[in-house]
Amino acid sequence: MTTVESNPSADELLSSEKTLRSAAQIVSKVAVRTPLVESPALNERLGTRVLLKLECLQRTGAFKFRGAYNKVASLTETQRRQGVVATSSGNHAQALSAAGRLLGTPVTLAMPKDAPPFKVERARAHGATIVHYDRYRDDEREVGATLARERSAVMVHPFDDPQIIAGQSTVGLELFEQAESLGARIDALMVPCGGGGLTAGVALAARYASPLTKVCTVEPEHYDDTARSLRGGRIVANDMGAAHPTLCDALMVAQPGQLTFEINRRLVAESLVVSDAAVREALALLTREMRLIVEPAGAIGLAALLEGKRLSGTSCLAVIISGGNIALGALETLTMGGSN
Amino acid sequence: MTTVESNPSADELLSSEKTLRSAAQIVSKVAVRTPLVESPALNERLGTRVLLKLECLQRTGAFKFRGAYNKVASLTETQRRQGVVATSSGNHAQALSAAGRLLGTPVTLAMPKDAPPFKVERARAHGATIVHYDRYRDDEREVGATLARERSAVMVHPFDDPQIIAGQSTVGLELFEQAESLGARIDALMVPCGGGGLTAGVALAARYASPLTKVCTVEPEHYDDTARSLRGGRIVANDMGAAHPTLCDALMVAQPGQLTFEINRRLVAESLVVSDAAVREALALLTREMRLIVEPAGAIGLAALLEGKRLSGTSCLAVIISGGNIALGALETLTMGGSN
Repeated sequence: MTTVESNPSADELLSSEKTLRSAAQIVSKVAVRTPLVESPALNERLGTRVLLKLECLQRTGAFKFRGAYNKVASLTETQRRQGVVATSSGNHAQALSAAGRLLGTPVTLAMPKDAPPFKVERARAHGATIVHYDRYRDDEREVGATLARERSAVMVHPFDDPQIIAGQSTVGLELFEQAESLGARIDALMVPCGGGGLTAGVALAARYASPLTKVCTVEPEHYDDTARSLRGGRIVANDMGAAHPTLCDALMVAQPGQLTFEINRRLVAESLVVSDAAVREALALLTREMRLIVEPAGAIGLAALLEGKRLSGTSCLAVIISGGNIALGALETLTMGGSN
Repeated sequence: MTTVESNPSADELLSSEKTLRSAAQIVSKVAVRTPLVESPALNERLGTRVLLKLECLQRTGAFKFRGAYNKVASLTETQRRQGVVATSSGNHAQALSAAGRLLGTPVTLAMPKDAPPFKVERARAHGATIVHYDRYRDDEREVGATLARERSAVMVHPFDDPQIIAGQSTVGLELFEQAESLGARIDALMVPCGGGGLTAGVALAARYASPLTKVCTVEPEHYDDTARSLRGGRIVANDMGAAHPTLCDALMVAQPGQLTFEINRRLVAESLVVSDAAVREALALLTREMRLIVEPAGAIGLAALLEGKRLSGTSCLAVIISGGNIALGALETLTMGGSN
């Protein structure tokens, strides 16, 4: 569908800085250059310098916009005219809808009939077409594939796609530039990890822009597919049937992608797993000390530091706060009584 | 008590850049260099470029820390040892407590017996001594003066003090530097205005660092003492006995200060007054589109733009988001149903 140049393999991504630099050029024109900030209260609490990259301030409230925009921008004109399809009701759906609107590409989203109305509303506000399916009767992937076929549209995977990964790499490229201008050398970087797209992108960016930085994935308990896959040297899945609860719904995926796994197994230094309790604590701290609205998945990198999962020999850490799509009421409940 | 050098008059502040540069040196060592950000959604909504200076990310959640720190740092060693006193339970109290802790200066705060417990807790967490008084029987100023006399401590006024004003000016100095590095020329700057300390500081900064920027005060309805004072050419007070409701409790003062009035009447371009409804709308927008926890007073500059109070001939505006000390539950109520 796309040409070889615009659709590199893991090896090609690993050996060429060009794909990342090209994504940076495309994405920087429209994405928010989100601030890299620190909080004296947080530094004091953790006993080390911690820089936070605020992707909750990104368009559509999460880093996902970067990858989605880069993907749609890298399609051929014909493909862009015919549109894109995704099966998502979360941050990927919003991101793709916003990217499609900016680039004049029709976006069709398959969402379960019982998806939360505000998520449907948000996607619709960006002009996406919503097709509902029955999550108990229909197969999500089949619904998506059928939609794509009917519309001659491109199916956009939320993470296992080179242009998505290249788009997410711009989080890292910006972060390392900003750290340099603050005179900070990042020893380790905590990355919330679902399918591994953000991790792969940021790890590639680190390789070129900050090779001494250790990139660490952070996953919620019961959804540690990346940690187990990297440890075992092959892709292993989560037990999705077990329906373990987690606050970090945005990180619940079945298993790492092929492409993300290939990149991450070569570039990730450590894979951490944290509890919901630590995520709650991180949310409370972000609310109380930094007045930021962050979703649980977005706070998991900080949660790892609160649980004492610090790498030895590190003195300056960075954390990607990956998203902020949560209702205030839900955040209040999670942080038990508000910001004061 | 202090020397002439460390306690300049309005004329001296107006004619010397030195006081501001010295404050910048002192304050920049400890204050957060808060980010200047923009939101595509907000720009689109307002039809113009708007840069937001996020003082909600400042230490103690408001710009007040800057002035308080500069004030305590400018005291003589003896004064610092003997301590400082303030009559406040709000952002000034927290700021002074934090500054005192950092500089080893005892802080005593007179607070009404019925002050909200979380405010008392926050000040106490920074090591301040709280002295309660009965707001119905005791005179606040007398309570403060007695405490200061008993302890040979310096009474720190929340805004009508040259070192406080010089400290607040660092918000402006940073903002203009950051705007320049973004290639933006600020045509007009919206400043939340209570007693006028932030306005005076920022207006002085603009005079030296961005003389073409129009500095505008923004006040809530019924508490437009600065607008009326500037219009009339003399200090006029609010009718505090009338107990008009306002969401912006942090901006409820009796009248402008002597020093702030003298500076602001020479440097402020326009004085705007906005409704609580516009403040609510601004809070909803900041919550929904930027995932920021902002208190009503902190959002009033944006509220002015939402009410269409834009100056003619402006194409790039800046707004100081002055503070974020509000409980999540209260913010949820004000924004009617949360962020999504």
